[in-house]
Amino acid sequence: MQIAMIGLGRMGANMVRRLLRGGHECVVFDVNKASVDALAGEGAVGASSIEDLVSKLAKPAAVWMMLPAAITDDTLNVLAGLLARGDVIIDGGNSNYQDDVDRAGKLAEKGIDYIDVGTSGGVWGLERGYCLMIGGPKAAVTRLDPIFLSLAPGAGTAESGVGRRTSELGYIHCGPSGSGHFVKMVHNGIEYGMMAAYAEGMNLLKAANSGKQTRTVDAETSPLSHPQYYQFDLDVAEISEVWRHGSVVSSWLLDLLAQSLENDPNLEVFSGRVSDSGEGRWMLKAGIDTGIPLPVLSSALFQRFSSQGHERYSNQVLSALRAAFGGHAEKKH
Amino acid sequence: MQIAMIGLGRMGANMVRRLLRGGHECVVFDVNKASVDALAGEGAVGASSIEDLVSKLAKPAAVWMMLPAAITDDTLNVLAGLLARGDVIIDGGNSNYQDDVDRAGKLAEKGIDYIDVGTSGGVWGLERGYCLMIGGPKAAVTRLDPIFLSLAPGAGTAESGVGRRTSELGYIHCGPSGSGHFVKMVHNGIEYGMMAAYAEGMNLLKAANSGKQTRTVDAETSPLSHPQYYQFDLDVAEISEVWRHGSVVSSWLLDLLAQSLENDPNLEVFSGRVSDSGEGRWMLKAGIDTGIPLPVLSSALFQRFSSQGHERYSNQVLSALRAAFGGHAEKKH
Amino acid sequence: MQIAMIGLGRMGANMVRRLLRGGHECVVFDVNKASVDALAGEGAVGASSIEDLVSKLAKPAAVWMMLPAAITDDTLNVLAGLLARGDVIIDGGNSNYQDDVDRAGKLAEKGIDYIDVGTSGGVWGLERGYCLMIGGPKAAVTRLDPIFLSLAPGAGTAESGVGRRTSELGYIHCGPSGSGHFVKMVHNGIEYGMMAAYAEGMNLLKAANSGKQTRTVDAETSPLSHPQYYQFDLDVAEISEVWRHGSVVSSWLLDLLAQSLENDPNLEVFSGRVSDSGEGRWMLKAGIDTGIPLPVLSSALFQRFSSQGHERYSNQVLSALRAAFGGHAEKKH
Amino acid sequence: MQIAMIGLGRMGANMVRRLLRGGHECVVFDVNKASVDALAGEGAVGASSIEDLVSKLAKPAAVWMMLPAAITDDTLNVLAGLLARGDVIIDGGNSNYQDDVDRAGKLAEKGIDYIDVGTSGGVWGLERGYCLMIGGPKAAVTRLDPIFLSLAPGAGTAESGVGRRTSELGYIHCGPSGSGHFVKMVHNGIEYGMMAAYAEGMNLLKAANSGKQTRTVDAETSPLSHPQYYQFDLDVAEISEVWRHGSVVSSWLLDLLAQSLENDPNLEVFSGRVSDSGEGRWMLKAGIDTGIPLPVLSSALFQRFSSQGHERYSNQVLSALRAAFGGHAEKKH
Repeated sequence: MQIAMIGLGRMGANMVRRLLRGGHECVVFDVNKASVDALAGEGAVGASSIEDLVSKLAKPAAVWMMLPAAITDDTLNVLAGLLARGDVIIDGGNSNYQDDVDRAGKLAEKGIDYIDVGTSGGVWGLERGYCLMIGGPKAAVTRLDPIFLSLAPGAGTAESGVGRRTSELGYIHCGPSGSGHFVKMVHNGIEYGMMAAYAEGMNLLKAANSGKQTRTVDAETSPLSHPQYYQFDLDVAEISEVWRHGSVVSSWLLDLLAQSLENDPNLEVFSGRVSDSGEGRWMLKAGIDTGIPLPVLSSALFQRFSSQGHERYSNQVLSALRAAFGGHAEKKH
Repeated sequence: MQIAMIGLGRMGANMVRRLLRGGHECVVFDVNKASVDALAGEGAVGASSIEDLVSKLAKPAAVWMMLPAAITDDTLNVLAGLLARGDVIIDGGNSNYQDDVDRAGKLAEKGIDYIDVGTSGGVWGLERGYCLMIGGPKAAVTRLDPIFLSLAPGAGTAESGVGRRTSELGYIHCGPSGSGHFVKMVHNGIEYGMMAAYAEGMNLLKAANSGKQTRTVDAETSPLSHPQYYQFDLDVAEISEVWRHGSVVSSWLLDLLAQSLENDPNLEVFSGRVSDSGEGRWMLKAGIDTGIPLPVLSSALFQRFSSQGHERYSNQVLSALRAAFGGHAEKKH
Repeated sequence: MQIAMIGLGRMGANMVRRLLRGGHECVVFDVNKASVDALAGEGAVGASSIEDLVSKLAKPAAVWMMLPAAITDDTLNVLAGLLARGDVIIDGGNSNYQDDVDRAGKLAEKGIDYIDVGTSGGVWGLERGYCLMIGGPKAAVTRLDPIFLSLAPGAGTAESGVGRRTSELGYIHCGPSGSGHFVKMVHNGIEYGMMAAYAEGMNLLKAANSGKQTRTVDAETSPLSHPQYYQFDLDVAEISEVWRHGSVVSSWLLDLLAQSLENDPNLEVFSGRVSDSGEGRWMLKAGIDTGIPLPVLSSALFQRFSSQGHERYSNQVLSALRAAFGGHAEKKH
Repeated sequence: MQIAMIGLGRMGANMVRRLLRGGHECVVFDVNKASVDALAGEGAVGASSIEDLVSKLAKPAAVWMMLPAAITDDTLNVLAGLLARGDVIIDGGNSNYQDDVDRAGKLAEKGIDYIDVGTSGGVWGLERGYCLMIGGPKAAVTRLDPIFLSLAPGAGTAESGVGRRTSELGYIHCGPSGSGHFVKMVHNGIEYGMMAAYAEGMNLLKAANSGKQTRTVDAETSPLSHPQYYQFDLDVAEISEVWRHGSVVSSWLLDLLAQSLENDPNLEVFSGRVSDSGEGRWMLKAGIDTGIPLPVLSSALFQRFSSQGHERYSNQVLSALRAAFGGHAEKKH
């Protein structure tokens, strides 16, 4: 079927490619003309503006936005002025689900359907397919089923003993508008927690030879009481590889980690400044609103904040207090 | 090759079965005679006592213990009195790696080798193979390679682009005695973190309809400020299933979770008292010793402690303080 | 000077009493007529409605609201319709500082000043004075200085080597509207953390005799490896009392705790369900917005959520996973 | 009465001074002869060696050690060889209470009493007195009561409505050997938590003007969604001062903090590397042993570990994973 795509970055462009392979007609636009031309060369219909894109669509139209959160609302407003009753706008980016709820309410007044799609798969989606978590009106979601089916991984990725549910193919209709991004938000929060669990474990594996190091003996350094138990030089690349085979912690993230560590077990190309892109923050706020304790997520999120340098003043306060009551001078690094 | 197994519980018995399938000769003993007889019926050589078991072994002997931590040391002491220079004792249970270091030192004085094997795979190991993390003297570990190869999953479980390392077959020699259980300890700590990440996520998914509930309005209850954002009745079974297909959080644990939730999304058969069996505690202590922050593991471990009822007095102190400075009365459940 | 007070609950009524003692004229209103009559009997001017209250005020009028968060906005709207350019509304309750920012913006259009006052002191304020954190336009705050001075503790509470700052008397002008409640919010978040620190410590003191208890020995219970180190029957009342004298952890909260524990060291009147009233949640959200890690606050807040029963499904998920991969059955409580 | 002191560092020397003021005879030794001479000039009896010190003591002798943990055991062994049945050794340093339990057991075989004293007060103890938490045999503790009374703050520090308990004077007998340091360990763990609570709060107060800063807009930076709520330039020195007067969070630590912030609100003399000296680690291990959740303490401890640079590899793993699944490049600092 026909679908329009606005936003041809890494994610959007690859989704168009996967849709083209699925036999769909894709009308595409991006502010970067080169991106439009590239996909036009692969079979898509290029558009020179949002207006041009809309003019090329049969009714009822379906327009998929794959944009950074910061410009999604502006584009949405433009689209809302060009589309008509019965058309549908799909937001496949990383929007806050609360914005979806608000947007859907406004668009409903014009009779335009709004669908939010949480999309997981990252740079591997073109090859493996995208796991899709969809929120929106049932009729509109059903109409777009061929699109979702083409984007999703299909039955090949993982085995399942049960029947033919779309969940087994890698996409589901979660509920009304906003629910798709809500589920994606929780997905990403779990991802934060899993990543942090692996990171902690690897960090401790690396420290298993701490007993071989000479420690300063002074009142400011806590001594390592049993150095004989910390004499192991462990191979983190081999360990992450072996865990992929039959262990309880095997996962796709572990597959990626094993590969990264095989390339460079010391990961020296990375400085350890870890960004966060919003979903973890939103999920923690949702936990606060609903009274659900999220200690793992908050730990993972705060670790990222600290890695960005935001714990510094807090630590200075601690040092100031230690100096004030105990006369402790800071150790130099 | 010939190997003895002491301890024929769920894990030990299935490991014997997998070894028998691999063509090995297994001499087996358990304090429960019925367990011995069952495996004798499947081709193992039954023994009536540890002495009898040792008497049936060719030299150099290899004895694998698969016992609860509480009785491992007693059995080890009996064995140490019966075995001789060149023999090897393997501990495949969940021992503290520090005990391994101590045991290996004592056994080395008698010329007996000690190998510790961290074993992951749980009740699925018979079918899928056991992921093995092995610590001990290189010569002894190498001699037992056919045993490890038979127990391990082999190449089928996960794909890998690299060559023929034993890690790809699901077993590795991590380092000297103790290192196998150290790596297994970290493995289990990661498992705690991953499980807690999924659990938190599922808990929040369940709470996505909080806005539909009527909340008491009083000074002791924090109001839900935006109920319109918490109106989703989400299907946790479908969500865990869809994440198995192409998403970043897919894993073997998620496979199990999806199946559990399909059977009963409310998990009503479980009361929510979560045991812990030691490795998480040991790992946290190792983090303390080496100065490695483990916020995710500690959060996961403390959640289990709380589920066991150990936070009660702490909460009573909080209520007492709130009453003392603010005159707040406790709300009833 | 003259001031009006709306809301004569525990906090509001005692503040009026303290203001009357300071020689101020207080015009008071509450929906509960008995509360109005009681204070009228102590020298305040009673009002029968908000309209009546406003009619009794000289210009420029100053009206202090001391109301539950849930009804503050409604009262504010009524007041805004009755007051005029140059008047001032003070919110001394526990409002979210973001609401203050919004309210001040709207009232400024009418020329009405808005002052937010974070008030600490709880049920002890009448006697000890109230610590005041004030946000709002400088001129309006300055005009009301006699009111703040009377409410504040004055110089007696704590010693200080420095000069005559209002901070030493127990009140400060923090900045523009909203900043008073922002500082109060952070104050309460610190309070959560301090309370949780004491609570944890007391809980561990209580557990110092764990080694005397007989533990079940089974695969689901982690053994207490060194019971000889947990043989202390400690007197938590005596310990909290001694810490009040010369220790680093002495504080006003500790004073209250020592008194509570002297009355009943087992705190059996409390069930351990701990409410939270909003500020901790708002502070955590502010930390999320600004990228400031708040691990102590979040731990303290999540402990309260758990005490309210909101961790149950999360724990059920953990039990379900343990059953699925390890065949572990839940222990009964 | 007569008492010997070994170890004349900041703590030991000041304790001798306070004892001399109390009219006690102090026999003193330190490996640093200048420290001995200084106190001899103030009225103490100097000793040239441990042997010399013991020779100067009347029977039954009482020797107080105030030494770094690393050399306490060696000194104790020397003393044990010189002392006799009925004598008493007091350890007033920061020993692990488990060492106390072991030491007391060994010394009891020789009839020597062992008393462990947890001592709080830091560099302020000379002036304010030391809060003492005492473990050991009742008879020995009772015999030394005049010493403890002189070291303790006495009744002046804080008021109390109750009678004449030693706890009100600032010292208590907690229980058998080890219990003094156990209680001190918990005291320090609470101190960690309180310090971290204040530090977090101050960090957030500092960030209250985040909305004034221009943020990069890119996919790697989470946008500040409501900058209008983060426009406050707060004076942390004034805020900490005002909280000292009538607020719920007033404490001795806050007194110190207010003074530090008045001197330099930016605390620029401190780099933010926070040491830890052992008690926090021991307390967390005790929580692990007894199954008591300690989320605040662990958060506070891990923050210190991170400030020491031990989170780096963990963060590199996170960055590696983000690059692997999402193609995210690290932002530079």
